Amino acid sequence: MASFFECVRTLETQQHSMLCIGLDTDRAKLPLHLKDATDGIVGFNKAIIDATHDLVCCYKPQIAYYSSQAEEEALIETIQYAQDKGIPVLLDAKRGDIGNTAEQYAIELFERYGADAITVNPYMGSDTLAPYLSYRDKGIFVLCRTSNPGGGDLQNLMLEGGRHVYEHVAHLASEQWNEHGNVGLVVGATQPEELAKVRQITGDMPFLVPGVGAQGGDINALMNAAKGQNVIISSSRGVIYASENADFAQAARANALETRDSINAARN
Amino acid sequence: MASFFECVRTLETQQHSMLCIGLDTDRAKLPLHLKDATDGIVGFNKAIIDATHDLVCCYKPQIAYYSSQAEEEALIETIQYAQDKGIPVLLDAKRGDIGNTAEQYAIELFERYGADAITVNPYMGSDTLAPYLSYRDKGIFVLCRTSNPGGGDLQNLMLEGGRHVYEHVAHLASEQWNEHGNVGLVVGATQPEELAKVRQITGDMPFLVPGVGAQGGDINALMNAAKGQNVIISSSRGVIYASENADFAQAARANALETRDSINAARN
Repeated sequence: MASFFECVRTLETQQHSMLCIGLDTDRAKLPLHLKDATDGIVGFNKAIIDATHDLVCCYKPQIAYYSSQAEEEALIETIQYAQDKGIPVLLDAKRGDIGNTAEQYAIELFERYGADAITVNPYMGSDTLAPYLSYRDKGIFVLCRTSNPGGGDLQNLMLEGGRHVYEHVAHLASEQWNEHGNVGLVVGATQPEELAKVRQITGDMPFLVPGVGAQGGDINALMNAAKGQNVIISSSRGVIYASENADFAQAARANALETRDSINAARN
Repeated sequence: MASFFECVRTLETQQHSMLCIGLDTDRAKLPLHLKDATDGIVGFNKAIIDATHDLVCCYKPQIAYYSSQAEEEALIETIQYAQDKGIPVLLDAKRGDIGNTAEQYAIELFERYGADAITVNPYMGSDTLAPYLSYRDKGIFVLCRTSNPGGGDLQNLMLEGGRHVYEHVAHLASEQWNEHGNVGLVVGATQPEELAKVRQITGDMPFLVPGVGAQGGDINALMNAAKGQNVIISSSRGVIYASENADFAQAARANALETRDSINAARN
């Protein structure tokens, strides 16, 4: 079986796409005919996947949207549906806890949900990442420099010796955590100059770059900073809520196509 | 309704206890007669709660043990059972994500599970904590200095200006995040000298101190460092797996009693 990163690279070539669609599916935002349906969440996700699977390199459900609504089964079914179309799934969970607990989270994410890749939080240190890293075919994206307003509160603190905290995380990821070649970093789209620093530290390590679309990141600047390679660019709300009406899937496809093409234009 | 911290203070006085029992309930470790029972997890937790609820100030289920095993209903039932005995529940989830997602996690933890308090991760910054902090009666424990082997990898980095990262988190918690008086910090039991520094920074802010028992923290040293006040001392595996046989609940009670009394002895 191909690893997550191999699958993504194949799709990037075959589908000319570095786009990841985030499935942050909120029942309150569904079109009327799905909002009150028992299988509304799954129905929405399947329609989005049907309309966009030839335009993406992976999907990224955010687990909180499912666990807040007791929609565990919808998440499992969504992940399986995407995988059946040949698209790997990155489950955005940002877990981080001591070893025993991390083993349980790894079971939750990789075995119960069948995720091909996940996001994790590095604040508790190396031993808390080890249980995920031992899954060699999975992709483990470590939070490095995030694109939200408070992202710099800890990540941009300057350390003695002249590195920022996020740069230190990039060094740890590159020099210690990536023994099996299954590590990526989460680097936000809204700070291209910092993304460029992380690229310099980590060579060709894959980046997950959220923050395009609703969060306002500039595609040209980020593709330039990332040297146009080994990036998975994630857009969630901008794509899946492109229309709130019955035409939501076609609207999502139109938005995904435009975003994919903008990424490719910026790449060249 | 009393807030989480008010409930804990009342129980600390009434039950002479600063002990929190961690419900890291792993089906594989249950006594034989519960291991294969459909309601084995709930049955185990109820027996532990029945045997110990007069000895604790709160319970702390670790959510990963439930979500890895699709035991969401067992978690809900456990939390309700403890609350019906008058004991508040701290749901250990260590979530951390952007605002929209954090709102979903807050719904998961406080509304779906009915937790009275939670743990959260500060790596993504202030705006990612805000959705939890707006629940004024809940307790929000922010990871500060954790007791696991790699806890220092990021937390103990030295910043320009002479503060460690964990000290900076303590300052943020004390000076920015605690507007509603609902913030606590997670500070491990295995580094008493660092716990003393956090106490100095934060005055009487409540600490959740895991790492007593299985993780090897010294009760006297930590109670001294914490100035003997506003600490919730958590023990999980040491208490709940004190015996692997049918007498597990009595063994848990014996261990909890001894731990509670050791804490009180160290306090005085």
